[in-house]
Parts: sequence; structure tokens; C-alpha cells
Amino acid sequence: MNLSPLNKARYGYSPKLPGMLRNGIADISVKEGAPTQSVADQEKIKALFPNTYGKNEITFEKGTNTSAVKKQVVGVILSGGQAPGGHNVICGLYDALKAINPENELYGFKGGPSGLVEDDYVVFDDEFINAYRNTGGFDIIGSGRTKLETEEQFAIVTEVCKKHGITAITIIGGDDSNTNAAVLAEYFAAHEAGVQVIGCPKTIDGDLKNEDIECSFGFDTATKTFSELIGNIERDANSAKKYWHFIKVMGRSASHVALECALETQPNICLIGEEVAAKNMSLSEIASSIADSVEKRAANGMNFGVAIIPEGIVEFVPEFSALIAEINELLAGNKTEEFNALPNWSAKLAFIKSGLSESAMDVFSVLPQNIQQQLFLERDPHGNVQVSLIESEKLFSAMVKTELDKRKKAGTFTGKFSAQHHFFGYEGRCAFPSNFDADYCYSLGYNAAMLIQYGFNGYLSKVSNLSKPAEEWVAGGMPITKMMNIERRNGKDKPVIRKALVELDGKPFKFFEANREAWAVETAFTYPGAIQYYGPTEVCDLTTRTLALEKA
Amino acid sequence: MNLSPLNKARYGYSPKLPGMLRNGIADISVKEGAPTQSVADQEKIKALFPNTYGKNEITFEKGTNTSAVKKQVVGVILSGGQAPGGHNVICGLYDALKAINPENELYGFKGGPSGLVEDDYVVFDDEFINAYRNTGGFDIIGSGRTKLETEEQFAIVTEVCKKHGITAITIIGGDDSNTNAAVLAEYFAAHEAGVQVIGCPKTIDGDLKNEDIECSFGFDTATKTFSELIGNIERDANSAKKYWHFIKVMGRSASHVALECALETQPNICLIGEEVAAKNMSLSEIASSIADSVEKRAANGMNFGVAIIPEGIVEFVPEFSALIAEINELLAGNKTEEFNALPNWSAKLAFIKSGLSESAMDVFSVLPQNIQQQLFLERDPHGNVQVSLIESEKLFSAMVKTELDKRKKAGTFTGKFSAQHHFFGYEGRCAFPSNFDADYCYSLGYNAAMLIQYGFNGYLSKVSNLSKPAEEWVAGGMPITKMMNIERRNGKDKPVIRKALVELDGKPFKFFEANREAWAVETAFTYPGAIQYYGPTEVCDLTTRTLALEKA
Repeated sequence: MNLSPLNKARYGYSPKLPGMLRNGIADISVKEGAPTQSVADQEKIKALFPNTYGKNEITFEKGTNTSAVKKQVVGVILSGGQAPGGHNVICGLYDALKAINPENELYGFKGGPSGLVEDDYVVFDDEFINAYRNTGGFDIIGSGRTKLETEEQFAIVTEVCKKHGITAITIIGGDDSNTNAAVLAEYFAAHEAGVQVIGCPKTIDGDLKNEDIECSFGFDTATKTFSELIGNIERDANSAKKYWHFIKVMGRSASHVALECALETQPNICLIGEEVAAKNMSLSEIASSIADSVEKRAANGMNFGVAIIPEGIVEFVPEFSALIAEINELLAGNKTEEFNALPNWSAKLAFIKSGLSESAMDVFSVLPQNIQQQLFLERDPHGNVQVSLIESEKLFSAMVKTELDKRKKAGTFTGKFSAQHHFFGYEGRCAFPSNFDADYCYSLGYNAAMLIQYGFNGYLSKVSNLSKPAEEWVAGGMPITKMMNIERRNGKDKPVIRKALVELDGKPFKFFEANREAWAVETAFTYPGAIQYYGPTEVCDLTTRTLALEKA
Repeated sequence: MNLSPLNKARYGYSPKLPGMLRNGIADISVKEGAPTQSVADQEKIKALFPNTYGKNEITFEKGTNTSAVKKQVVGVILSGGQAPGGHNVICGLYDALKAINPENELYGFKGGPSGLVEDDYVVFDDEFINAYRNTGGFDIIGSGRTKLETEEQFAIVTEVCKKHGITAITIIGGDDSNTNAAVLAEYFAAHEAGVQVIGCPKTIDGDLKNEDIECSFGFDTATKTFSELIGNIERDANSAKKYWHFIKVMGRSASHVALECALETQPNICLIGEEVAAKNMSLSEIASSIADSVEKRAANGMNFGVAIIPEGIVEFVPEFSALIAEINELLAGNKTEEFNALPNWSAKLAFIKSGLSESAMDVFSVLPQNIQQQLFLERDPHGNVQVSLIESEKLFSAMVKTELDKRKKAGTFTGKFSAQHHFFGYEGRCAFPSNFDADYCYSLGYNAAMLIQYGFNGYLSKVSNLSKPAEEWVAGGMPITKMMNIERRNGKDKPVIRKALVELDGKPFKFFEANREAWAVETAFTYPGAIQYYGPTEVCDLTTRTLALEKA
């Protein structure tokens, strides 16, 4: 195996724990706080989680460890998309379990939640763990998207746990996975299975965030990686002075990633889906606002710029969502076959025109032809439009070009407009975790072991006060039910962790809003550069601008 | 101006000079080596450069500075595409000029060579220079692609130099720009203009390389940045285990960038254009060789992988080049209008079929439809196919898919194949220069000032022994004519610097060749991570694998 120099060097990094966890296992005591309530729909959530609802908030502090002596056999799974730092959660969990009792064991179930159902696992030892310390990726045991949610699955999992003598399961995942962790915890409690469940908040998307979870892990590293690239492109734009770069960034529906990248790099444009929805903006209005920036900069001799486009943007444009709904309806059932049988695009276009409402057709008409075709030709197995595949960075640049062509004819735009397109996602999900994520993740895992040792079930490993140095971080746990509300999903009421969208009255957006008019016209680019793991602390240990502003 | 923490920290970095330049200006003496000959076509080159041909190789060493006392007014230009470290060349030049004589002046001509013709400039001072130390980009004065090659331009440049009392011009550029630098130097000498010309070897593409120039600046940083991203994607592929990633990397014709990235990251596949040409490989053969890797990995349960595609690959496929030539011929003159007037793609296809030779049509037929259309619908102002715009990463993944579908039917392939596509170029051209590029560039600039001070003209600033620590680097100069030969360009014989292609009997390719069969089947990925500027020297000061292997 050929390890890169950085990979080797990172093995030697010692992640920083919260001060209260630094005194050794024997000196970590638990402080129970007040009982909790779910953020909404309290009666319904309580009824669904009779055994795990309303438990106390937990904080660890320096003091005599009063936990019972017991051999722990813990299982851990990685669930969903990769996020930098997942390996460190497992390392922290492993180290704490071994420090508590060298006889303790950690099982890693492979390929995500399905590994738990299929009993596909590895038992970690020092050599195995050491090869993954402070590295990116989820390759230590792999990940997967199977959902653990049915009684049948839970029964199998219970058997698997019994077989290995497993006392607790740690689920490293996003909002859905942690919702399912809470359901599993309730199942274990109701069935007196003797197995605890502890969740850890993972996602680069940043949408698992609430008054208890200051940020999910991986968000820091992923946004720093994207910002490195955006900054490099900004500097290229400002050197060559001939391109507008449209850069789409991963992050699912919410625009947290785009906003953080904008705060880091100060581009000319950054779209925020939540604002587009709140203001009921049309595609043309969005394109026109970008064209305004292009026009103003061109008037100052600057025929270049950078625009950040969040992955989920089109879902937030009300008229576009309405169009998608009509298309899905238009092609439902065997109408897809009928459509596919039409000989060419002209015939298909006639079919579309006759099937869409006037307002939907108006929206469809402003789309560039390749996007029009994409909407009809690439659909998922259920016949639905694959919104996530829509190349929105190309959609908007094409619409901006059309708008500028109009303005050119009208004489208001006399500049040049030439676009380049980028999409960043896979580039950042498996980067070596930043010092922040390496520390935070190791602490989450270490902390999860302490929650297990103290017998808690249905809790999320919680580390807070994250905008301060690690020494001042606060470690503890929060019942997952506390973060839940009832939402309508697939026609059913479901208890779920509320997904965090960008708050338009929150400080990060407010800061962006206060500056963006200047950024749209001036060249106020900021170049973050590559993530640094060594060197000055102000370069290496800084967390996100989002968190800094939220805690300011 | 909002500077990132890394940007501020990098201002404080002191680039390392070659040992022989560390003793202070008064202790730098010049040692003249043997007279030089051009690498080929000696008589022709000599005839074209009567005043600058055959000069001696130069090395600096510790010793009493014997140069004449003279006020230097130097002009500098950045030419062509951005490369990390350009700012440091200017900083090194500035610092040396001021150290030689505080009265010396440095003019930066803006927007590339056109700035020199248009007399558009800035005079540098400490404050200006300090804002660009150790940063990426060419935004200090901008760059441009105007070529300085006509007598008319030279006459204007001579006037501009006279006006400002300019004694020397430093041209920071690639092979073409340095060729033009040599022609300008000859012009100045022939016209006794009293202006010297010194070139500096710049390009991320790595194709300005020969027995004197060990590597061009920017190649190190750009390939490290691309390798960071490729490594992150490899780790993602190895975690999610469900995608094959086809990654195109910038680098023009030659495959140096792709090869270096492959040596850094050990992907499953890396195409090398020079090999494809040497073996006269067809598109189908290339696709088939990739499909072999996909099939073998699938047989081992690994339905994922990474393939690196050099930007210039299709130009090296003989049958593809022949097809392009026929298409250009087919659409020459007013036949483009005739073609464009055809009502739809079917009609166009008939036109194409009737116009192409059978062998060209065979090649055309294996292309995916979107590439077929691209070849005919997107052409440059001269009606030629824009080869550089061809999305070869999508071309090959589509052809691999077709091949695998065949194998699936034949029963030899039973795995899954799902592809993702990436193109990296703008992400790496303006990154903060690695310590290597920061040091190398600063040395090139510092050295250029010494060549100017000692009165040399038509020289390339040369710093060698680069695989060793900077202390052991050797500083000097080489007549640009030494690197020249005669090549046919646009139907005329022209003296040019020979462009370096990947040598198939060179150590870097040989190393790759010896390992690639294993890499194609195994998961031997190496994850380089982000460029580090601080920390352990083995992490921060390492140069490219290419250079290390070449000098091994």
C-alpha cells in the first residue's frame, strides 16, 4: 500500500477532546439536566416513543465515574452519503471503549445499515483502527442507504445483537438515519432487548442543525474544500478576465453549503433556495438578477465573475416545482410509453404542449432546449423527473445569456458574456477532515462511548460550544425525540427530526444579504486556499463562517 | 478587502533561494560555460539569430560581483494561461532589482504582451508587491494571449522601452512566448536597442521541459491540486462503491499532467495520449481496455473505479484526427451554410454520410450521438471542429458503457456500471503556489534580475537540480536558441522551442507502465490530500513524482 506523505503524517495527529473529557475515564461523571420535550407535536411524539420520550438532557463533567462495570460490545454503522470525519467518530468510540475496559469490543457493520441486517461485520483492533485515524472517507467499513425502519428489520437486528452479545449500537448518519435510530431505540426499550442506541450527527449538507446540534460533522471540511476550489476559480477569473463561472455545489435541498461557500469566497452571485421560495421568484427573475450583475460589471470593464448555485435550487422555484408536478402527471402510467414512441422531438414537443397548462408551458418555454429534453428523457424508475440531475448551473447561464442578448439588442448591455460550468460534490465528501472535523468527530465518538457506558438509549451524541477552542467544548447527550416533530411523508404522518433550512432572519444570511449588492458589482473575491492541518492556529483551527456568525 | 487567513499567513513566507544566491548581491559572480548549439537545425537557427545564437551557458556562483553599475529599468509581462507562482517570479525580480540598486525600477505591463504594445503599465513599489507575495493567480497585472511576433509590434515595443528608459524585459510564459522572447531579443540586438530580454518557463501543462529546463513552474501546484481532488474522489468511490468516475484533466496536448496525477493517486485507468498515438490505438480499443478493467473489478465485487483522461487525448487517436480533418474539409467554405440550412439531424446525418469516407464514417458511427452533434454544431470562427471542447470524459464513458452492454449480453460481464464525470483545470491554475513553486518562482525571478544585471540577452532564467533541497539548486541562464528547432507551423518553417511530450521510454511512464495492470484490477488508490504549506518537510516541500523519477 502506497500512502501519501500527508496520509502518513495525519496518523500522528492527536484530536483535541473537550476539556471535560480530558481527565481520563475514571474522572468523567454525568450531570443530568432537565427533562426534555419534542420541539413540536409533543403528545403525538410522546405516544410514539413511550419508553424513550422526555428523558433528561445530559452533560459530562469532571468528577468520579459512577457508571456500572460491565463489558460493552458495541456495533457501529455508517449511514448515507460520505462526510469527512466519519473514521474519527469510530476511532474516538474505539479509544474510549478500550480505555473504559480493554475487554470491550467494537464491531463495524459493513456497507451501511444493511450490514447490521445481514450480519456482515469486522471486529476492530488497534492495527485496523490506526490505518484510518484522521483520514477522510467511509472506506473503513463502507456506507449504504438502506433504511432501518421496519419491525421485521428490527427483529432481525435484535437477533444479530443477541448473537454477538451487543450492548449498544452507534448510528452515524443524517436526519433520516437518526430518526430511525430513535425508532430503533424505542423498539429495543419496548422489547427489553438490552441494547442501547446512540446517534451521531453526520452530513456535509449542514441541514441537521437545531438548538442542540450546532453543526453536523463534515460540513466544515466539505465547504472548505469547495471554497478552496471556488477561490481558485475566482482568482483565475480575475486574472484571465474573460469568463463567468457558474459553480453548482452539492448540499441537497437546503442552501447551507452554498451560503457558507459564499461567506468564505465573496462571489458576485450566490443563489439561496430558501429566499427564492420565500419571495416566490421565477426562473426569469433569478436570471435577470444575475444578468444585472453581469451588466453592471461589464459597464466597469469587468466581463468576468463567479456565481454559486446550490444543488437544490430548482426545487425552491415555485413555478418550476409546479411544472415538474405537471410533467410527472403527464407521463404517469403508460403515457410514458406513448411519449417515448413519438418519432422525434417535434412530435414530442406537440405532445407536451397539448398536455401542459398554460402557466406550466410558459415556464417550459423559457428553458434552454437541452434542459427541456432532460426533463422528458431522463426519468427515474417511477417515471418521475430526476430533479437532482438537472444541470441548474447550465440552466441559469443559458437563461442569463438569453437575457443579455435581449439587453444587447436594447443597447443596455455592451459587454461580453462567456460562461464556464462546474459542479463540486464528490470532491469534498471524502477529504481528509479539517482539524475541526477531526477533533469534533473524535469527540462525538468518544462521547458516544461515555453515553453508552452510562446506560443512555435513544440519545444523540452532543458536543457544543463549537465556536470556541476545543478545551471549552461541552460534551453530553440529548434525547433524539427532543428534535422531532410530525411531518407528512409519502401521505403519512411520521415522527422525524426537523430538517434545518437556511433561516432568512439568521445572522449568516443577514451578513450575506448586507454585503451581496457590493459583491455583485465589485471584485471582492476572497481566496481561502487549501485546508491546512499544520501551521498557525488561525489558519488551521478555524471553523465555518456560518457557525462563527451564528454564535457571534 | 477581506483576506483569508491563509492569504495573510502566506505573506509571511520567505521563499528559499538556491544556495549560491543567498550570499547577497555583492557576492554573486557569474561563471560562463561552453558555447551552445540549438538542439537541431543548427545552421538554420543560427542564420535566423545571428546576434544571439551560440552564446555561453551561464551559472552563478559565490564570488565577487563584477557586473557594471547601471540603473536598471525592467519591464515584466505575464503571457498566456495562469500558472501558480507567477506572482513570485515578479516578487523575486523586484526584490533582486531593489537589492542591486534601490534606484532600479520594475514596470508591470498589464493584460499580457498587449500591455507592452499599448504602453499600459504599473510601476511596482513595496506596498503593491507585498500584497501578492506567495499568492496564486496572475491578477497582479493580468495576462493575455496576444503574440509578440511581428516587426511592427517590435518597433512599437522599442519605442515604449525608449520612452521609459527600459533596459530589459522579462517575459513569463510558455514555449510559444519564450520563442517570441528569443525573436524579440534578436530584434533588439540587431537594432542595438539597448534592451535585453529574459524569459521564464511557465506552464501548468509541463510541456516546456528539456535537458535544461527540468520543469516549468506551476506544474507542481496544479497537479497537486488536481491530485487532491482525484484522491478525494477515489476515496469517495471506494466508500460508496457504486460509481466509476471519469476525470478529465487540463494540460493541452501532452499528457504530463495526467501522468503526474496518476503517479500521485494510482487510479485504475490513466490514458496517455503519446502512447495511444505510438500504438495507433482506435477509440474502440481504448474503450475496450477500460471495459476490461471494469469487468475484472466487477468480477471481484468492485463496481467502482477512477479513470483519468488527459485533455488532449482525442488529438492523439489517429483515426479520430483523420475524422476531424475530413469534417473540417466537409464543412469548408460555404458548405457550412448549406449544412446549417438542413432542417433536422436526420437530414444532417445524410449529408454527413454522403460526405465522409468509409473509414471516417466507421469512426463517426461509434461515437455517442451528443458527441456526433458536437462535432458538427460547435465550430470555431474558421469553421473548424473545436477539439478542445470535446467532452472526452463523456465520450469514453459512453463507449465503455456500449462495450459493457455487449459483454453483458455475451454473459462475460455481470456487474454494474454507472459513471460520473469531472473536468479539472481552472481549479488548479491559480491555487496558492506550493512551497516548491513559491521557492522555484521566486528564484527564477531573482535569477532573471541577475542575468539582466550581468548583461545577458535572449536567455531563459534557469534553475536546476530541483529534485534536491533548494540549498543545492543551481542558478544560471541558458540561451533560448539552444532549445530551438525548425518546425512546420501553418505551412511555414518556424524556429520554435521544441514542445516536450511524454517520453514512452522515460522513467515516469515506465513506472506507470510497470504498475498499471495491478492498479487496473486492485484498489491501489493513494490519497494525496490538500497542498500543505506548513508542517513536516516531507509533506510540504516534496516536488512532483515525475521529477523525482526522472532524477532518480
